[in-house]
Amino acid sequence: MRGCKLLRRKCVADCVFAPYFPPDQPQKFSCVHRVFGASNVSKILQDLPPHRRGDAANSLAYEAEFRLHDPIYGCVGHVSNLSQNLQQIHHNLVLAKNELSLYLGNNNNINIQNTVIGGAAGTSRGVGMGQLLPELQNLL
Amino acid sequence: MRGCKLLRRKCVADCVFAPYFPPDQPQKFSCVHRVFGASNVSKILQDLPPHRRGDAANSLAYEAEFRLHDPIYGCVGHVSNLSQNLQQIHHNLVLAKNELSLYLGNNNNINIQNTVIGGAAGTSRGVGMGQLLPELQNLL
Repeated sequence: MRGCKLLRRKCVADCVFAPYFPPDQPQKFSCVHRVFGASNVSKILQDLPPHRRGDAANSLAYEAEFRLHDPIYGCVGHVSNLSQNLQQIHHNLVLAKNELSLYLGNNNNINIQNTVIGGAAGTSRGVGMGQLLPELQNLL
Repeated sequence: MRGCKLLRRKCVADCVFAPYFPPDQPQKFSCVHRVFGASNVSKILQDLPPHRRGDAANSLAYEAEFRLHDPIYGCVGHVSNLSQNLQQIHHNLVLAKNELSLYLGNNNNINIQNTVIGGAAGTSRGVGMGQLLPELQNLL
Protein backbone atom coordinates (compact mmCIF):
# COMPACT_ATOMS: atom_id res chain seq x y z
CA MET A 1 0.00 0.00 0.00
CA ARG A 2 1.06 3.59 -0.60
CA GLY A 3 0.62 4.21 3.14
CA CYS A 4 3.42 1.80 4.05
CA LYS A 5 5.86 3.84 1.98
CA LEU A 6 4.59 7.15 3.33
CA LEU A 7 4.69 5.95 6.92
CA ARG A 8 7.91 3.97 6.40
CA ARG A 9 6.30 0.92 7.91
CA LYS A 10 6.31 -2.71 6.93
CA CYS A 11 3.13 -3.93 5.28
CA VAL A 12 1.28 -6.05 7.86
CA ALA A 13 -1.56 -8.51 7.32
CA ASP A 14 -4.02 -6.82 9.70
CA CYS A 15 -3.30 -3.24 8.62
CA VAL A 16 -6.39 -1.09 9.31
CA PHE A 17 -5.76 1.03 6.20
CA ALA A 18 -5.14 -1.67 3.57
CA PRO A 19 -8.78 -2.63 2.73
CA TYR A 20 -9.82 1.01 2.19
CA PHE A 21 -6.73 2.54 0.62
CA PRO A 22 -5.79 0.20 -2.24
CA PRO A 23 -2.41 0.49 -3.97
CA ASP A 24 -4.02 1.58 -7.24
CA GLN A 25 -5.34 4.78 -5.52
CA PRO A 26 -2.15 6.11 -3.89
CA GLN A 27 -3.55 9.67 -3.81
CA LYS A 28 -6.38 8.62 -1.52
CA PHE A 29 -4.09 7.72 1.37
CA SER A 30 -1.67 10.57 0.88
CA CYS A 31 -4.57 13.08 1.02
CA VAL A 32 -6.01 11.81 4.31
CA HIS A 33 -2.52 11.50 5.75
CA ARG A 34 -1.68 15.11 4.89
CA VAL A 35 -4.93 16.55 6.27
CA PHE A 36 -5.88 14.33 9.22
CA GLY A 37 -2.67 12.45 9.92
CA ALA A 38 -2.42 8.66 9.69
CA SER A 39 -2.85 8.14 13.44
CA ASN A 40 -6.12 10.09 13.58
CA VAL A 41 -7.47 8.21 10.55
CA SER A 42 -6.44 4.91 12.11
CA LYS A 43 -8.20 5.87 15.34
CA ILE A 44 -11.42 6.85 13.55
CA LEU A 45 -11.43 3.59 11.57
CA GLN A 46 -10.61 1.38 14.54
CA ASP A 47 -13.40 2.93 16.62
CA LEU A 48 -15.94 1.86 13.96
CA PRO A 49 -17.30 -1.60 13.18
CA PRO A 50 -15.51 -3.04 10.11
CA HIS A 51 -18.57 -2.75 7.83
CA ARG A 52 -18.71 1.06 8.35
CA ARG A 53 -15.01 1.72 7.80
CA GLY A 54 -15.21 1.85 4.01
CA ASP A 55 -17.71 4.72 4.09
CA ALA A 56 -15.65 6.52 6.74
CA ALA A 57 -12.45 6.16 4.69
CA ASN A 58 -14.25 7.51 1.61
CA SER A 59 -15.78 10.48 3.40
CA LEU A 60 -12.41 11.32 5.01
CA ALA A 61 -10.77 11.17 1.57
CA TYR A 62 -13.49 13.43 0.16
CA GLU A 63 -13.02 15.99 2.96
CA ALA A 64 -9.25 15.83 2.69
CA GLU A 65 -9.35 16.44 -1.06
CA PHE A 66 -11.55 19.50 -0.55
CA ARG A 67 -9.24 20.83 2.16
CA LEU A 68 -6.14 20.45 -0.01
CA HIS A 69 -7.97 22.16 -2.87
CA ASP A 70 -9.26 24.95 -0.64
CA PRO A 71 -7.19 25.27 2.58
CA ILE A 72 -9.38 28.08 3.92
CA TYR A 73 -12.88 26.60 3.63
CA GLY A 74 -12.45 22.94 2.66
CA CYS A 75 -15.77 21.25 2.09
CA VAL A 76 -17.46 23.74 4.45
CA GLY A 77 -17.29 26.18 1.53
CA HIS A 78 -19.24 23.69 -0.50
CA VAL A 79 -21.81 23.26 2.31
CA SER A 80 -22.22 27.02 2.38
CA ASN A 81 -22.71 27.22 -1.40
CA LEU A 82 -25.23 24.41 -1.41
CA SER A 83 -27.16 26.06 1.44
CA GLN A 84 -27.28 29.36 -0.42
CA ASN A 85 -28.41 27.65 -3.63
CA LEU A 86 -31.08 25.79 -1.72
CA GLN A 87 -32.32 29.05 -0.21
CA GLN A 88 -32.36 30.73 -3.64
CA ILE A 89 -34.19 27.92 -5.38
CA HIS A 90 -36.67 27.73 -2.50
CA HIS A 91 -37.33 31.43 -3.00
CA ASN A 92 -37.93 30.77 -6.71
CA LEU A 93 -40.35 28.00 -5.86
CA VAL A 94 -42.30 30.33 -3.57
CA LEU A 95 -42.49 32.86 -6.44
CA ALA A 96 -43.75 30.11 -8.76
CA LYS A 97 -46.41 29.07 -6.25
CA ASN A 98 -47.51 32.67 -5.82
CA GLU A 99 -47.75 33.10 -9.57
CA LEU A 100 -49.74 29.87 -9.88
CA SER A 101 -52.14 31.04 -7.18
CA LEU A 102 -52.99 34.05 -9.37
CA TYR A 103 -54.37 31.63 -11.94
CA LEU A 104 -55.92 29.17 -9.53
CA GLY A 105 -57.44 31.67 -7.11
CA ASN A 106 -57.10 30.99 -3.44
CA ASN A 107 -58.15 27.34 -3.44
CA ASN A 108 -54.51 26.31 -3.15
CA ASN A 109 -55.02 23.16 -5.18
CA ILE A 110 -51.44 23.32 -6.28
CA ASN A 111 -49.57 20.09 -6.83
CA ILE A 112 -46.19 21.53 -6.03
CA GLN A 113 -44.69 20.93 -2.65
CA ASN A 114 -42.37 23.58 -1.34
CA THR A 115 -41.87 22.11 2.07
CA VAL A 116 -38.70 20.21 1.31
CA ILE A 117 -36.53 22.60 3.32
CA GLY A 118 -38.54 22.31 6.49
CA GLY A 119 -39.11 18.61 5.86
CA ALA A 120 -36.37 16.37 4.54
CA ALA A 121 -33.56 18.82 5.19
CA GLY A 122 -34.76 19.49 8.71
CA THR A 123 -34.54 15.84 9.61
CA SER A 124 -31.29 15.02 7.86
CA ARG A 125 -28.74 14.08 10.52
CA GLY A 126 -30.33 16.66 12.78
CA VAL A 127 -28.99 19.73 10.98
CA GLY A 128 -31.35 21.50 8.57
CA MET A 129 -30.67 24.55 6.50
CA GLY A 130 -32.50 26.79 8.93
CA GLN A 131 -30.08 25.71 11.63
CA LEU A 132 -27.07 25.63 9.37
CA LEU A 133 -27.11 29.17 8.03
CA PRO A 134 -26.88 31.01 11.37
CA GLU A 135 -24.31 28.42 12.41
CA LEU A 136 -22.22 29.20 9.33
CA GLN A 137 -22.64 32.93 9.89
CA ASN A 138 -21.04 32.52 13.28
CA LEU A 139 -18.24 30.42 11.92
CA LEU A 140 -17.36 31.99 8.57
CA MET B 1 -5.54 29.04 25.84
CA ARG B 2 -7.08 25.61 26.16
CA GLY B 3 -4.57 24.35 23.56
CA CYS B 4 -1.62 25.01 25.87
CA LYS B 5 -3.10 22.68 28.47
CA LEU B 6 -4.01 20.03 25.92
CA LEU B 7 -0.60 20.15 24.26
CA ARG B 8 1.23 20.62 27.58
CA ARG B 9 3.07 23.61 26.21
CA LYS B 10 3.86 27.00 27.63
CA CYS B 11 1.71 29.83 26.31
CA VAL B 12 3.90 31.84 23.91
CA ALA B 13 3.32 35.33 22.55
CA ASP B 14 3.42 34.36 18.87
CA CYS B 15 1.32 31.18 19.20
CA VAL B 16 -0.40 30.49 15.84
CA PHE B 17 -3.52 29.12 17.60
CA ALA B 18 -4.15 31.83 20.19
CA PRO B 19 -5.97 34.43 18.01
CA TYR B 20 -8.43 31.87 16.62
CA PHE B 21 -9.01 29.58 19.59
CA PRO B 22 -9.85 31.89 22.49
CA PRO B 23 -9.91 30.58 26.06
CA ASP B 24 -13.66 31.13 26.33
CA GLN B 25 -14.25 28.52 23.58
CA PRO B 26 -12.18 25.58 24.86
CA GLN B 27 -14.25 23.07 22.85
CA LYS B 28 -13.20 24.67 19.57
CA PHE B 29 -9.54 23.76 20.00
CA SER B 30 -10.12 20.34 21.49
CA CYS B 31 -12.36 19.39 18.51
CA VAL B 32 -9.81 20.33 15.84
CA HIS B 33 -7.03 18.73 17.88
CA ARG B 34 -8.93 15.44 18.16
CA VAL B 35 -9.85 15.27 14.46
CA PHE B 36 -6.96 16.91 12.59
CA GLY B 37 -4.21 16.99 15.18
CA ALA B 38 -2.64 20.21 16.43
CA SER B 39 0.39 19.93 14.11
CA ASN B 40 -1.77 19.64 10.97
CA VAL B 41 -3.92 22.58 12.06
CA SER B 42 -0.81 24.62 12.80
CA LYS B 43 0.58 23.77 9.35
CA ILE B 44 -2.65 24.75 7.57
CA LEU B 45 -2.80 28.07 9.46
CA GLN B 46 0.86 28.92 8.96
CA ASP B 47 0.63 28.27 5.22
CA LEU B 48 -2.09 30.95 4.97
CA PRO B 49 -1.77 34.73 5.16
CA PRO B 50 -2.82 35.93 8.64
CA HIS B 51 -6.05 37.57 7.43
CA ARG B 52 -7.37 34.19 6.12
CA ARG B 53 -6.50 32.15 9.20
CA GLY B 54 -9.64 33.04 11.14
CA ASP B 55 -11.90 31.61 8.41
CA ALA B 56 -9.71 28.53 8.13
CA ALA B 57 -9.80 27.94 11.90
CA ASN B 58 -13.59 28.29 11.87
CA SER B 59 -14.14 25.94 8.95
CA LEU B 60 -11.78 23.37 10.52
CA ALA B 61 -13.74 23.62 13.77
CA TYR B 62 -17.01 23.17 11.87
CA GLU B 63 -15.71 20.07 10.05
CA ALA B 64 -14.23 18.63 13.23
CA GLU B 65 -17.49 19.06 15.11
CA PHE B 66 -19.38 17.24 12.33
CA ARG B 67 -16.82 14.41 12.31
CA LEU B 68 -17.05 13.93 16.09
CA HIS B 69 -20.84 13.93 15.83
CA ASP B 70 -20.84 11.51 12.87
CA PRO B 71 -17.55 9.59 12.64
CA ILE B 72 -18.65 7.77 9.47
CA TYR B 73 -19.73 10.64 7.23
CA GLY B 74 -18.71 13.86 8.99
CA CYS B 75 -19.86 16.93 7.10
CA VAL B 76 -19.83 14.92 3.84
CA GLY B 77 -23.13 13.44 5.04
CA HIS B 78 -24.50 16.95 5.25
CA VAL B 79 -23.18 17.77 1.75
CA SER B 80 -24.97 14.69 0.47
CA ASN B 81 -28.25 15.64 2.19
CA LEU B 82 -28.10 19.20 0.90
CA SER B 83 -27.42 17.93 -2.65
CA GLN B 84 -30.40 15.59 -2.48
CA ASN B 85 -32.65 18.35 -1.14
CA LEU B 86 -31.47 20.68 -3.88
CA GLN B 87 -32.24 18.06 -6.50
CA GLN B 88 -35.72 17.48 -5.01
CA ILE B 89 -36.63 21.16 -4.78
CA HIS B 90 -35.31 21.72 -8.30
CA HIS B 91 -37.62 18.96 -9.49
CA ASN B 92 -40.52 20.71 -7.70
CA LEU B 93 -39.63 23.98 -9.40
CA VAL B 94 -39.68 22.29 -12.81
CA LEU B 95 -43.15 20.92 -11.99
CA ALA B 96 -44.27 24.41 -10.98
CA LYS B 97 -42.94 25.87 -14.24
CA ASN B 98 -44.67 23.18 -16.25
CA GLU B 99 -47.93 23.84 -14.46
CA LEU B 100 -47.57 27.59 -15.05
CA SER B 101 -46.95 26.99 -18.74
CA LEU B 102 -50.39 25.33 -18.94
CA TYR B 103 -51.92 28.68 -17.98
CA LEU B 104 -49.58 30.88 -19.97
CA GLY B 105 -49.47 28.81 -23.15
CA ASN B 106 -46.13 28.23 -24.77
CA ASN B 107 -44.88 31.82 -24.73
CA ASN B 108 -42.63 30.99 -21.76
CA ASN B 109 -43.02 34.46 -20.24
CA ILE B 110 -42.49 33.03 -16.82
CA ASN B 111 -40.68 35.13 -14.27
CA ILE B 112 -39.32 32.20 -12.33
CA GLN B 113 -35.77 31.13 -12.91
CA ASN B 114 -34.95 27.50 -12.49
CA THR B 115 -31.40 27.70 -13.68
CA VAL B 116 -29.84 28.12 -10.26
CA ILE B 117 -28.35 24.63 -10.23
CA GLY B 118 -26.63 24.99 -13.57
CA GLY B 119 -25.76 28.61 -12.80
CA ALA B 120 -24.62 29.71 -9.36
CA ALA B 121 -24.01 26.22 -8.05
CA GLY B 122 -22.12 25.19 -11.15
CA THR B 123 -19.64 27.98 -10.71
CA SER B 124 -19.23 27.74 -6.96
CA ARG B 125 -15.67 26.66 -6.25
CA GLY B 126 -15.74 24.55 -9.39
CA VAL B 127 -17.99 21.80 -8.02
CA GLY B 128 -21.67 21.89 -8.97
CA MET B 129 -24.33 19.44 -7.91
CA GLY B 130 -24.24 17.71 -11.27
CA GLN B 131 -20.60 16.94 -10.69
CA LEU B 132 -20.97 16.25 -7.01
CA LEU B 133 -23.61 13.55 -7.07
CA PRO B 134 -21.73 11.03 -9.24
CA GLU B 135 -18.64 11.91 -7.22
CA LEU B 136 -20.47 11.12 -3.98
CA GLN B 137 -21.90 7.93 -5.44
CA ASN B 138 -18.37 6.73 -6.03
CA LEU B 139 -17.27 7.67 -2.58
CA LEU B 140 -20.21 6.81 -0.33
